Amino acid sequence: MKLIGLPNIPFIQPGDDLAELMVRAIQQMGLILTYHDIVVIAQKIVSKAEGCLVRLSEVTPSPQAIELAKITGKAAQYVEVVLWDTVAVIRARPNLLLVEHKLGFISANAGIDQSNVGTEPDMVLRLPHDPDASARSIRQRLIELTGAKPPVLIIDSHGRPWRLGTVGVVIGLSGLAPVQDLRGTADLFARKLQHTDVGFADQIAAAASLVMGQAAEGCPIVIVRGLPFTPDEQAKAADVLRPQEMDLFR
Amino acid sequence: MKLIGLPNIPFIQPGDDLAELMVRAIQQMGLILTYHDIVVIAQKIVSKAEGCLVRLSEVTPSPQAIELAKITGKAAQYVEVVLWDTVAVIRARPNLLLVEHKLGFISANAGIDQSNVGTEPDMVLRLPHDPDASARSIRQRLIELTGAKPPVLIIDSHGRPWRLGTVGVVIGLSGLAPVQDLRGTADLFARKLQHTDVGFADQIAAAASLVMGQAAEGCPIVIVRGLPFTPDEQAKAADVLRPQEMDLFR
Repeated sequence: MKLIGLPNIPFIQPGDDLAELMVRAIQQMGLILTYHDIVVIAQKIVSKAEGCLVRLSEVTPSPQAIELAKITGKAAQYVEVVLWDTVAVIRARPNLLLVEHKLGFISANAGIDQSNVGTEPDMVLRLPHDPDASARSIRQRLIELTGAKPPVLIIDSHGRPWRLGTVGVVIGLSGLAPVQDLRGTADLFARKLQHTDVGFADQIAAAASLVMGQAAEGCPIVIVRGLPFTPDEQAKAADVLRPQEMDLFR
Repeated sequence: MKLIGLPNIPFIQPGDDLAELMVRAIQQMGLILTYHDIVVIAQKIVSKAEGCLVRLSEVTPSPQAIELAKITGKAAQYVEVVLWDTVAVIRARPNLLLVEHKLGFISANAGIDQSNVGTEPDMVLRLPHDPDASARSIRQRLIELTGAKPPVLIIDSHGRPWRLGTVGVVIGLSGLAPVQDLRGTADLFARKLQHTDVGFADQIAAAASLVMGQAAEGCPIVIVRGLPFTPDEQAKAADVLRPQEMDLFR
């Protein structure tokens, strides 16, 4: 398995055609995209291309946002934007605001990002409105431009209970089954494995995240090559979410 | 970044020298191990080499094991072996026994494994007694055999709250800092990032886990090449554990 970070992705502006920038960067490297590849894109540039920017000074915080801002020590306008994308507050503590995003996953600050947004410290970035749709549309455009039809994953970094450090996770996808169910597969000794659901797409997200790096040396698009996957045209990022009634840790 | 799975690793027996088998497999591929590489090893073969096998029919379950066996639907002897390595039961439900392992992490069944252990259905495999020490000793042996001193990670697959599917995580390590603290690093716009601890070693574990696969096509050793890391001779897997008082999800 090989992970190829695309250099030369320019700073993304609203309206930019990510697929086109990607294809150009791939060509500059002398590579060709194939349908065996998997394309992994950092959420941040998708949000930027889709113009998901909010100017905090134009936001009026609700009473709930003001209350949560007091608890967490975060700015009330910022908390208000977090609440726009929140269906349930999971934990609020000093320096922590953990919520269930309206897209279904649990993350700090509903994924609202203040870093690398632009030169204006007042701007924050929301997640794409519908990351699965974003992935589908980027994939469709890749097909138009190259003929290849690689699965597309849009990823973010999430913290975790029990363990330190954020890891890449998939928040939008098109074209592959994100969870591999190995129940019933025989092991080396032909005994049936009882239960092995593998977090396939999240492991790809974690791998790509290593190459993307963070902060200054960022590289927001990674091509994963040489990893067999199960194509699935109906798959969506919500397939990775543990149903609430099966979840013992909320 | 490139991940190279080593084929031709034979079925491991107690007492096998994993470093020697690894070096032979690397040589057969025409490769040379360098100190830029990271070596990732599946826990299972380390446990096998260290002889961490238990014959369930020889185990006498305690009253607590019998009680937990009733709740979870698991065999009482198996639960007894889980309890040997357990400091606290986190959740017990039908088909789920989630515990804090004495090594500090939270995982299902204390990592006790029934699959791919051997032809005897009666045998289970415990985790290595001290996986950091195992990683150190494999690394020491690699230095003796090759002169190279790559970091060594021993990984397992853990389930997670909120999201479906297991992902690779590090349970033993030697030679690199497992969590990268980017606090204070400037972002693209020279604004200070407030808080970005990256789960570096766990992301490597997830990436390697993709290559290892599961079940029949297993490939238990993966070389990670082309990923810069922060050397740390004092690092240990417990550095990745969230201190209990900081953990809101137990």
